[in-house]
Amino acid sequence: MIKKKKSFLCVGLDSDIEKIPPFLKKFDDPVFEFNKRIIDATVNFTVAYKPNLAFYESRGVEGLISLQKTIDYLNSFGDNIFTIADAKRGDIGNTSKQYAKAFFEIFNFDALTVAPYMGKDSISPFLEFENKWVILLALTSNRSAADFQYFEDKNSKKLFQEVLHRSKEWSSKENIMYVVGATKAEALADIRKIIPDHFLLVPGVGVQGGSLEEVARYGMNKKCGLLVNSSRGIIFASNGEDFADKASAKARVLQQEMEFLLKENNII
Amino acid sequence: MIKKKKSFLCVGLDSDIEKIPPFLKKFDDPVFEFNKRIIDATVNFTVAYKPNLAFYESRGVEGLISLQKTIDYLNSFGDNIFTIADAKRGDIGNTSKQYAKAFFEIFNFDALTVAPYMGKDSISPFLEFENKWVILLALTSNRSAADFQYFEDKNSKKLFQEVLHRSKEWSSKENIMYVVGATKAEALADIRKIIPDHFLLVPGVGVQGGSLEEVARYGMNKKCGLLVNSSRGIIFASNGEDFADKASAKARVLQQEMEFLLKENNII
Repeated sequence: MIKKKKSFLCVGLDSDIEKIPPFLKKFDDPVFEFNKRIIDATVNFTVAYKPNLAFYESRGVEGLISLQKTIDYLNSFGDNIFTIADAKRGDIGNTSKQYAKAFFEIFNFDALTVAPYMGKDSISPFLEFENKWVILLALTSNRSAADFQYFEDKNSKKLFQEVLHRSKEWSSKENIMYVVGATKAEALADIRKIIPDHFLLVPGVGVQGGSLEEVARYGMNKKCGLLVNSSRGIIFASNGEDFADKASAKARVLQQEMEFLLKENNII
Repeated sequence: MIKKKKSFLCVGLDSDIEKIPPFLKKFDDPVFEFNKRIIDATVNFTVAYKPNLAFYESRGVEGLISLQKTIDYLNSFGDNIFTIADAKRGDIGNTSKQYAKAFFEIFNFDALTVAPYMGKDSISPFLEFENKWVILLALTSNRSAADFQYFEDKNSKKLFQEVLHRSKEWSSKENIMYVVGATKAEALADIRKIIPDHFLLVPGVGVQGGSLEEVARYGMNKKCGLLVNSSRGIIFASNGEDFADKASAKARVLQQEMEFLLKENNII
């Protein structure tokens, strides 16, 4: 799909109802209407979509209805789109199993972001689903990531490195990816020493300040191995009736940069 | 509330639709019907209720409707009940703010469990709400808790201890509690050296094998400082028409043990 679309762009559907263009308020479900138009406008430049659950849960039951419609619409594109629920779940095994059911069966996403703090038995239930992916938090894009993710053992191994080392033993390259923030691009070279072949989901390009070029320089492998996410930079590029056109233009710019980087690395 | 009810029991509403008594299936919303009867049967022995989000999300939009009705019903008891959304959320600041809105405003819970992996700026947005509580994961009750929570620095400080040390500086005793599993009771004495005054939410008594007496011995402070959770042991005590009576009896047994422990420690 990356080769076909010449892109490794993931569009984050952080569709905050307070920030979508006001003219959409006249629709029954403004958030779904917004998402649908964003998807239509960006789908040619995009390989994955990632709704962040928080922006749906913050509207209660109504928000979940918007999410359900959005994932159903995404799934109508079949294998042309990879879908990620950015939910950062994780609980004791008995409970993680229910979350897996929620996101992989009920909502039918391809992948789910998962938090590692509770360890192996909190992650395993997600790995048991065929053709579904766990995207485990490793090194996140926010400033406070350093608080615990840089916690170091006596050999100067950091917690996020321990997460990579251990979790790659629990799974295969075909069912686990990792979140590594674009704002930590310099760490990508080290991360690639631990997990040369895994795919990485890289948020933080755009509003959060990460650089696409640096991410590719340090993080790209022979199969690309990257999904780079942009949320607010694309979906809120304009607040007017032209929001979908502006989103399309922004996605196209990123796709073209990505096409250049894929060529430079002899992937296409 | 603990003194009035002579109890520090929290009932976990892990209301798996596959496990509730079959005769309830005839109701429009069997899970809400189940929860309502469990609440009515246990409220005299219980200071807090803790729905686990996974068991609601796994039914999609319908599940969230059951959750909404359940929290509305719990809130009809006013200050007599403390309500906890066991959701283990946490994301970058911008996103955590949306989760805070979801659980503290839309669903109107008193408290939310939060995962610490992403650090301070992922937790701060939850702490800004007045009269609401963050319950931060410290040392969880599952076997794999050791995978990362026991990750040790050069001074033998473990990750969960670092979480306690750092996070207590970000907050007050009046807006943060910690999750410490009952299956790790021996660690409670050490934990009390770091946070003598904070309240702890202690899951893992019952099905998971933790001992109430040991939890009280190592974890109780002058104000009690404990909420001990039981889920499956109470709510699934019977699978028949007598499930509410059986749940009531189980909750009463725990309340009586708690009353004894509160007296022994001169709290009541």
